[in-house]
Amino acid sequence: MNMDIAAVNALPYEDFVNILGNVVERCPIITAAVWSRRPFLSFSDLEGAISEFIDALPESGKEGILRCHPDLAGRDLQSGTLTRESHQEQAGAGMDALNSAEASRMARLNQEYKERFGFPFVICARMNDKANILRQLFERCQNERAVERARGIEEVKKISRLRLQSLVLTDAPNKL
Amino acid sequence: MNMDIAAVNALPYEDFVNILGNVVERCPIITAAVWSRRPFLSFSDLEGAISEFIDALPESGKEGILRCHPDLAGRDLQSGTLTRESHQEQAGAGMDALNSAEASRMARLNQEYKERFGFPFVICARMNDKANILRQLFERCQNERAVERARGIEEVKKISRLRLQSLVLTDAPNKL
Repeated sequence: MNMDIAAVNALPYEDFVNILGNVVERCPIITAAVWSRRPFLSFSDLEGAISEFIDALPESGKEGILRCHPDLAGRDLQSGTLTRESHQEQAGAGMDALNSAEASRMARLNQEYKERFGFPFVICARMNDKANILRQLFERCQNERAVERARGIEEVKKISRLRLQSLVLTDAPNKL
Repeated sequence: MNMDIAAVNALPYEDFVNILGNVVERCPIITAAVWSRRPFLSFSDLEGAISEFIDALPESGKEGILRCHPDLAGRDLQSGTLTRESHQEQAGAGMDALNSAEASRMARLNQEYKERFGFPFVICARMNDKANILRQLFERCQNERAVERARGIEEVKKISRLRLQSLVLTDAPNKL
């Protein structure tokens, strides 16, 4: 796509949401909301607007964002119902090629994490490999809930930054 | 489905979001957020939690909700890409059976509305017929932006109430 920020600023909201609506997984409302703040000076200004919108949400809203994320190597990956972006990210980190010991460890720890916190383990898969993801999942299960909520949201922002970067550099429109 | 509120309160967040995630069109974050507030005393308590979450959003967030809604009789209806709920609602109000004069009037007024306000015309189709929808679209194009934002959000809440009612009385799980 190779859009510059002027081209992004000129988009009607429908195109803006079609292209960038999954920058935060299954939360097109966030992209749709920040359209109100255009024109953006740069992509990092747009990224900052997304980040500020997230930070201004009540804690329940931040938990809501986390709950819109799929499990890593979970049933959506197995059944082919991940969003395009999530599928690429999970496959890139080897989540579709776990051996059976890794797969059962991942499933057990995901379940433990969700039961403990009431939201899924979120990590920027493009910045981590399989071993690292499994290790962090194990470690983060030990945290306090408020720490994990904040940590999950940090990861959401990393994912969002990378999705934004790749969406303005390729021509695959986002389909929700 | 015929779930009672105790059954809803017992749902893990994943099932809660799968079943109720489109109560506000394409905004599963809202359903996912209010899960934090369970147990709910009743369905109207749950409806109230959704409504309060929406009211606490900044104005940009309310506009974001509106921008997640499809046009009435618009390209998503024509191309079959509406959510299941929207399709039923639009078809029920006759939006898939406009004659050519009605269709072109609807398209022109929708465009005028979006250019004026930066979000789409939202109305609870299940509470209105074709003639009424066309008349209100024409009239509401004359309003001020802040009035229309508030009016659109009122309609979102009516839609949400009816979706919630039908989801707990049928067994069709919501697929986003």
